[in-house]
Amino acid sequence: MATELYDLTVPAFLRGFGAMSAFLTKSEAWAGEQGIDPADLLTARLYEDMAPLTAQVQRASDSAKFTVLRIGGVEAPAMPDEEVTFADLQARIAKTVDLLRWVAPEAMNGQEDKPVTLTTPTRSLEFTGRSYALGFVLPNFYFHLTTAYAILRMKGVPLGKLDYLGRA
Amino acid sequence: MATELYDLTVPAFLRGFGAMSAFLTKSEAWAGEQGIDPADLLTARLYEDMAPLTAQVQRASDSAKFTVLRIGGVEAPAMPDEEVTFADLQARIAKTVDLLRWVAPEAMNGQEDKPVTLTTPTRSLEFTGRSYALGFVLPNFYFHLTTAYAILRMKGVPLGKLDYLGRA
Repeated sequence: MATELYDLTVPAFLRGFGAMSAFLTKSEAWAGEQGIDPADLLTARLYEDMAPLTAQVQRASDSAKFTVLRIGGVEAPAMPDEEVTFADLQARIAKTVDLLRWVAPEAMNGQEDKPVTLTTPTRSLEFTGRSYALGFVLPNFYFHLTTAYAILRMKGVPLGKLDYLGRA
Repeated sequence: MATELYDLTVPAFLRGFGAMSAFLTKSEAWAGEQGIDPADLLTARLYEDMAPLTAQVQRASDSAKFTVLRIGGVEAPAMPDEEVTFADLQARIAKTVDLLRWVAPEAMNGQEDKPVTLTTPTRSLEFTGRSYALGFVLPNFYFHLTTAYAILRMKGVPLGKLDYLGRA
């Protein structure tokens, strides 16, 4: 049987946030052991004009939040991007996971052809529910998950590929 | 209508390799303009024990190659990881894209419950066609696409998020 929109997105988010939460926990513990200021990891970037670790977590959360809103019509609670500490990031992830666990598959399934419009300051992007999930949501979500992992690897945190992949 | 396995994977690969080919072309041109040795980009890594740019392209190609093999039973031509130059990487991408364009949707669709076993030196991972596509292939493919992009950003190549996303 072919794959419904809920199954295409929500389990990937849940696995990804599980992995992210676990590698953030490891990273905070490692910083403590090494006597490194946690802020040195939280504000780290791969390059000067790329976003820091905190923003990678926020944007991954947004990917999930906007998916359930735009495909399923489910409004998320406010998440105003005020995270500064590892505890703040864990709370943001937990809030996002609570939302994902609360969404009913029925709200998302069958919306493959629903028009989805993304408006940016310079233009509009037109999608369907399916093309939005496959061509925008998943590439963006994995971009931010990978970049969060890569920032921590670059700072020397001993993580490996299985920390990125997580488990179902 | 729910999404078939072909539509879940092959268009994402084609879009991703289109983006990758284009940002590699831009990067090679930029290196020429800046008087930078192309090898300085090709061998760059995000961190000392992570894989270089060439290997990120090879592993993205493998993701696609193994997907059509394990889900669709389609054997790929040999691709022995001998790429050194930008031209070599473009040829590897072109060969992978040719394979993807050649695969019939019928070979992949309906294989959601097919057992897929990945054997590593230390253990076996058991998937179905669906869980392999959603929980292994897509996270890995986007990991390598993102990391290739991130390596080039870190080296100063003027790329932006749309270079990563590409177009359908």
